[in-house]
Amino acid sequence: MKNHNYLPSKILEGNERALAKAISMIENQEKEGIEILKKLYKKGGKAKVIGFTGPPGAGKSTIIQCLASILSERSKVGIIAVDPTSPFTGGALLGDRIRMQNLFTNPNIFIRSMATRGSIGGLAPMTLDVVDLLDIAGYEWILVETIGVGQDEVDVAMCVEEVVVVLVPGLGDEIQALKAGIMEIGDIFVINKADKDGSELTYMEIKNFLEMEGNKDKMPKIVKTKAISMEGISELAEILKDDLKRKEKEKNLTEKKKNQLKTRLFQMLTKEFQNVFNQKKELEKTIEDLFWRKTDPYTAVEVLKKEILC
Amino acid sequence: MKNHNYLPSKILEGNERALAKAISMIENQEKEGIEILKKLYKKGGKAKVIGFTGPPGAGKSTIIQCLASILSERSKVGIIAVDPTSPFTGGALLGDRIRMQNLFTNPNIFIRSMATRGSIGGLAPMTLDVVDLLDIAGYEWILVETIGVGQDEVDVAMCVEEVVVVLVPGLGDEIQALKAGIMEIGDIFVINKADKDGSELTYMEIKNFLEMEGNKDKMPKIVKTKAISMEGISELAEILKDDLKRKEKEKNLTEKKKNQLKTRLFQMLTKEFQNVFNQKKELEKTIEDLFWRKTDPYTAVEVLKKEILC
Repeated sequence: MKNHNYLPSKILEGNERALAKAISMIENQEKEGIEILKKLYKKGGKAKVIGFTGPPGAGKSTIIQCLASILSERSKVGIIAVDPTSPFTGGALLGDRIRMQNLFTNPNIFIRSMATRGSIGGLAPMTLDVVDLLDIAGYEWILVETIGVGQDEVDVAMCVEEVVVVLVPGLGDEIQALKAGIMEIGDIFVINKADKDGSELTYMEIKNFLEMEGNKDKMPKIVKTKAISMEGISELAEILKDDLKRKEKEKNLTEKKKNQLKTRLFQMLTKEFQNVFNQKKELEKTIEDLFWRKTDPYTAVEVLKKEILC
Repeated sequence: MKNHNYLPSKILEGNERALAKAISMIENQEKEGIEILKKLYKKGGKAKVIGFTGPPGAGKSTIIQCLASILSERSKVGIIAVDPTSPFTGGALLGDRIRMQNLFTNPNIFIRSMATRGSIGGLAPMTLDVVDLLDIAGYEWILVETIGVGQDEVDVAMCVEEVVVVLVPGLGDEIQALKAGIMEIGDIFVINKADKDGSELTYMEIKNFLEMEGNKDKMPKIVKTKAISMEGISELAEILKDDLKRKEKEKNLTEKKKNQLKTRLFQMLTKEFQNVFNQKKELEKTIEDLFWRKTDPYTAVEVLKKEILC
């Protein structure tokens, strides 16, 4: 076994290779990686963590690229891509990749894509561990890109401080319905490719949705961008900063953060629960009995509950 | 407390009001409802359970309506709607409602919509309980309509014998990406509104997807329908019956059913686990410590694990 005792101090110094190594260890749920996080956890808590969500093709990665460029002038910026179709995770067109070269060579920007689907123990808990490591390593802004479909991604979105929903003009009614789950968690809405036809219509649709759903006092802001030529990005950065400042003053922020911690604990513990469940010797026999209808699901659950839960 | 002792025998006789009453009791997780299911569970296991999924607007409910009409000529048919946008659950246009009158007055058809989101203990376990009750009450075909987005619905789909994915021509690339999770669980694909432009393109897209993903030997069938005028529905019914017959002969059917039972047990037990978690006295203190970074998530989970899991 290799000695990784040097990692914690290197991470605190801001060494990127040490950070990358620790992230891999955490992704593989290696004991040593977990020990590093345990040891360093108290050093974190300073980063601003922003989630970006929205349908594939809306331009989330381009928005994140541009925003990271601006923010990196004054701060260290971490990017975590959870979306498998993202250029950050290799799912890019050539043009995207070329544009992204600048980011990869910027010393103030650290980019990491997460192994998606089927990662050990679920995506959300893992992503939050990586957020912690970046936070500990001194990244002031952490931008998390998710695909915006499915529970995993919604879970991630619920664990960040601010959710930016990226949309494009011309999404039909059907896709709007699919997005319903995302719409409700957005703090800021971006209409990207705002020079495209239908931009005004999309603006009105979002506005109507928010007015129907929302609290008039803290209506989410809607920003129009054309990320590919940086239009609207400075405005988005300012709105983000303002919104975060506003939130810091809110009384219920502590409550919200505690709820997020509760969700995180629950997700991590569910993984443990699943392991215990799968390893129960009685499980196979119970399933066999259920299959032959010698028992019923409720009785089976009562029996297993006594075996598994204290 | 009312006496519901008469319910089990009435349900077995096929009394619809007794059935409806028992379903409501199960939906509310009333102890007596659970007792009924426990008592009658061994009477079930004969129904063919088919899940219908696909994006809103694809015409799932119309397909189900038409199919139910055909199947009800020879059998009792139960319909369970889990999709909140479905006409079965009240989210209908006037035209839909009028067409559906026939179904509601057909003595061989029983329709039930499920309370969605926020239902006690998750949608999937509840839906399966209702499936059991219909099965016990002698419904030979049970058609379950889900919205096809989100984990709940995928979970439901994974617990039926056959999954029919309903699509329409003209869905763009973006929506295709969103649907990826559904595509993989489909046993039969329906292209509804097949007279619309782009029908052939959609056919090719589905075919390509299936050929790329799949096992050549048991390629899912693709059926074109125009449900509103009953076109293609008899063909769909035949394909369904053939596919179910083919499956019964397959060796791995038992294995698949046992896996489904395992999933169901896990979901039910997760609900119990969540209750225990939420009621833990130590939880609040742990979250407080986490918030102030006096502990870290992994240590917190280790502590809670000892308290909660045997």
